[in-house]
Amino acid sequence: MSSGKDFPDRIPAQPSVAGLLDALKYDADGLLTIVVQDANKSEVLMVAFANRAAMQKTLETGLMHYYSRSRKKMWLKGEESGHTQQVVSLAVDCDGDAILAKVKQTGGACHLGYRSCFAFGVDKTGKMTVIGEKLFDPAAVYRKK
Amino acid sequence: MSSGKDFPDRIPAQPSVAGLLDALKYDADGLLTIVVQDANKSEVLMVAFANRAAMQKTLETGLMHYYSRSRKKMWLKGEESGHTQQVVSLAVDCDGDAILAKVKQTGGACHLGYRSCFAFGVDKTGKMTVIGEKLFDPAAVYRKK
Repeated sequence: MSSGKDFPDRIPAQPSVAGLLDALKYDADGLLTIVVQDANKSEVLMVAFANRAAMQKTLETGLMHYYSRSRKKMWLKGEESGHTQQVVSLAVDCDGDAILAKVKQTGGACHLGYRSCFAFGVDKTGKMTVIGEKLFDPAAVYRKK
Repeated sequence: MSSGKDFPDRIPAQPSVAGLLDALKYDADGLLTIVVQDANKSEVLMVAFANRAAMQKTLETGLMHYYSRSRKKMWLKGEESGHTQQVVSLAVDCDGDAILAKVKQTGGACHLGYRSCFAFGVDKTGKMTVIGEKLFDPAAVYRKK
């Protein structure tokens, strides 16, 4: 693994999954930032984090896997709701610490029932307006606690 | 400030910048994740981090400000390159720890000269392909070290 500052300087000429995973730049907690965009509508659906194991699982299965900072474990998006995200394409940013995943989203990405988690517009006065499209009732999709 | 889990439960009914900044959820390092999308083309340009001060400065000036984790200071996007990002709209996600900024980007977002930082496509075999559109020569835009 090269120690170049930029991602394209670190990825090996001979492609391999391990080479890609080594070339990525994990933060102090071992995480990458993952931006998820609807492959058809170009809507940004959510942002989450992945550790190396979650990234490897995403590459292996074609379904988005993340690492939960609060629950401290890897999770498959949709494992409870069925609202999985099928990978259409993946792109890495210049310094290799963030991934843009274009996906085919089943159902909605947001645990509150919206298509996108970015459902709350705000302006420079601090005013909030709900802009998200509600697709489902979370109480019917997630187990009640 | 309410202690609700979800962002819409925490934002006060009476809008204020302080109320919005209080309702956001900063991580252990005091940071929010900022996803930046071109307002016209819907292309995701970059992901970065902002602390409370950077977020306040973005709201005040209408120009994207971030917090650099490596340099440990706030910065104005484009302060060196002139490639500023003018805010078109801002949206907060369901748990309030990430912002989607739709912007009008001057020049390119990427320090390597591409329009978007997500310039490097990768596939499940680990193969990397440059997919970014090169807009400028970084050596001509950034001061040489």
